[in-house]
Amino acid sequence: MSHPSTSLENALRRSAELHAQVHADPGRFRVVTGDRPTGPLHLGHLLGTLANRVALQRSGVEVFVVIADLQVSTDRDDPGDVRGNVREVLLDNLAAGLEQATRTEAGGAPVFVHSAVPALNELLLPFLALVTVAELQRNPTVRAEAAAARERGARRGVSGLLLTYPVHQAADVLSCGANLVPVGQDQLPHLEVARTVARRFNDRYGAGGPLLTEPEALLSAAPLLLGTDGRKMSKSGGNAIALRAGEDETARLVRSATTDGERRITYEPARRPEVANLLLTGALCSGTTPEALAEEVGDGGAARLKAVVTDAVNEHLRPLRRRRRELAGEEDHLRAVLAAGARRANAEAGRTLARVLAATGA
Amino acid sequence: MSHPSTSLENALRRSAELHAQVHADPGRFRVVTGDRPTGPLHLGHLLGTLANRVALQRSGVEVFVVIADLQVSTDRDDPGDVRGNVREVLLDNLAAGLEQATRTEAGGAPVFVHSAVPALNELLLPFLALVTVAELQRNPTVRAEAAAARERGARRGVSGLLLTYPVHQAADVLSCGANLVPVGQDQLPHLEVARTVARRFNDRYGAGGPLLTEPEALLSAAPLLLGTDGRKMSKSGGNAIALRAGEDETARLVRSATTDGERRITYEPARRPEVANLLLTGALCSGTTPEALAEEVGDGGAARLKAVVTDAVNEHLRPLRRRRRELAGEEDHLRAVLAAGARRANAEAGRTLARVLAATGA
Repeated sequence: MSHPSTSLENALRRSAELHAQVHADPGRFRVVTGDRPTGPLHLGHLLGTLANRVALQRSGVEVFVVIADLQVSTDRDDPGDVRGNVREVLLDNLAAGLEQATRTEAGGAPVFVHSAVPALNELLLPFLALVTVAELQRNPTVRAEAAAARERGARRGVSGLLLTYPVHQAADVLSCGANLVPVGQDQLPHLEVARTVARRFNDRYGAGGPLLTEPEALLSAAPLLLGTDGRKMSKSGGNAIALRAGEDETARLVRSATTDGERRITYEPARRPEVANLLLTGALCSGTTPEALAEEVGDGGAARLKAVVTDAVNEHLRPLRRRRRELAGEEDHLRAVLAAGARRANAEAGRTLARVLAATGA
Repeated sequence: MSHPSTSLENALRRSAELHAQVHADPGRFRVVTGDRPTGPLHLGHLLGTLANRVALQRSGVEVFVVIADLQVSTDRDDPGDVRGNVREVLLDNLAAGLEQATRTEAGGAPVFVHSAVPALNELLLPFLALVTVAELQRNPTVRAEAAAARERGARRGVSGLLLTYPVHQAADVLSCGANLVPVGQDQLPHLEVARTVARRFNDRYGAGGPLLTEPEALLSAAPLLLGTDGRKMSKSGGNAIALRAGEDETARLVRSATTDGERRITYEPARRPEVANLLLTGALCSGTTPEALAEEVGDGGAARLKAVVTDAVNEHLRPLRRRRRELAGEEDHLRAVLAAGARRANAEAGRTLARVLAATGA
């Protein structure tokens, strides 16, 4: 096993190559990405992943978006209003600009709900056979999620669902035949499980050529935004600007953000993390740099900073929020989008499953 | 947790009650049982489980038989000829006398292949959420199977598939809404996982009444037959009388059985386990007791004992083998049986899945 920082360097170098290849020949790539429906998406999602998946799709890459309803219970005992949250996440993705395939079968961004694609789950058993318990227990993402679940007061120990979570994600990715998965650094170990499953399956059964596509990580350069309380932004933490929030609600949330007492606003992430986070948020939303924005606010203090950031966020989100309000009234369209996505995902997963079952002899 | 022997006593007492209730009112019960298609079934299967499931079905209990093709890899790296073995296991079950439902939807013994029932696999994720990794690792059946897999030289450590095997079996049982599962003592811990999953699911989501049926164990009084080499009888060990074997092949296998040098044949399981095993085999096949059979052989020695046992086995299996040869030519009928079984299992599993998804909000 290579040293973590070396493998991270390799992943970053490879991602840079991949970004260039995507730019040159987008038709070669298929992406799988998605969200768990644990709540409406927020500004951190938009700037971190949604904008990226929209850009990939618009550049000509096919982007499958899975709304992973069956995986909500992975790290919590109470799944909440899953069906309602499926709708919120769908609205957020569409409002962000994902284009749907129309007449042709391929292309566009099929959005589908996990539970609507049975073949995907049938891949679990063959895939679980290819990974050891020890490997899953060593997985840093599983360990981190287990620790977080304990912190949130999960009643029992690590569940079978949490331990095998990387294999479920492997099924999400491999079932669609994706060759590219946009991930943050913290998700690299999960993707590594999908790569391992594909490689081992091909080694064991693919004498006539690879049967499963081994996906590669596309690391995004997206910055990590903190919540308004200076902690990790969270769908359910009350510290995030939801995409669906109104402008007044956004203003209230930004006003409530933690800052410090210094009148002069400067961009010093290490010394003034909360102020820096607001500057970064405002800068990303208005297409400037946090340093330039700090300069602009100058001696205006936290109140002026917050007013500037509120305007930047609300302005940036205005078209998205308008589309979102329109889409929210189009129930037939939303149903049709999910139905089309499920058809597409079922077709792909069905083909993959048939190949897997033929290879394993089942 | 109760003392193992106490819980075994309880299970035996409860099984006796259940046998009486089945006798009195068979229509109240639904059984799920099955086989992994790792090879053709043998005499040990017939006397241990097949005859029992046929008797249950003929008494009026509905018996679902799953041929668990997706679970073959649980304890081996090379799944072998799964599709061929599905056919063998199907022929063995039908030849043993399982009656198929004809015109009506319910009743009979639906035989289905695991991979033909997608909804069954969709239950895995919600069920995996209800069991901890620690519980699975403590499961004696998982531990025993892991040890056996190591002994057979499995290349890697315990796989995710083996660890989660009890949850897959829970899905097999709970998806069909079975309330009764015939098991040997060694499988009690597996059934306990299915009971735990049902109980926890009902506790968490079943405020309006139980959503999943908590199945009970029906311990059979079936004796444990050893192979002709005095070791555990095994589909792939070359020490078992396959149901499909010819009469000459059966004679050869019995002649090759390990015995001892004593001329006088007596039934002393502790002192003469191999001789006792032959006597038990012959006695079970000819409806007598091993003691009476020993008396009959008397001073005839091992050669006479083996001749008597061979005749008893061949006579007992003759009608089954005849039906098996007939069925083997009826490809359309075999396909129709599996198709009808899959329809039935899909309908049941689909209803269960809909209830589970509605309850968990997905």
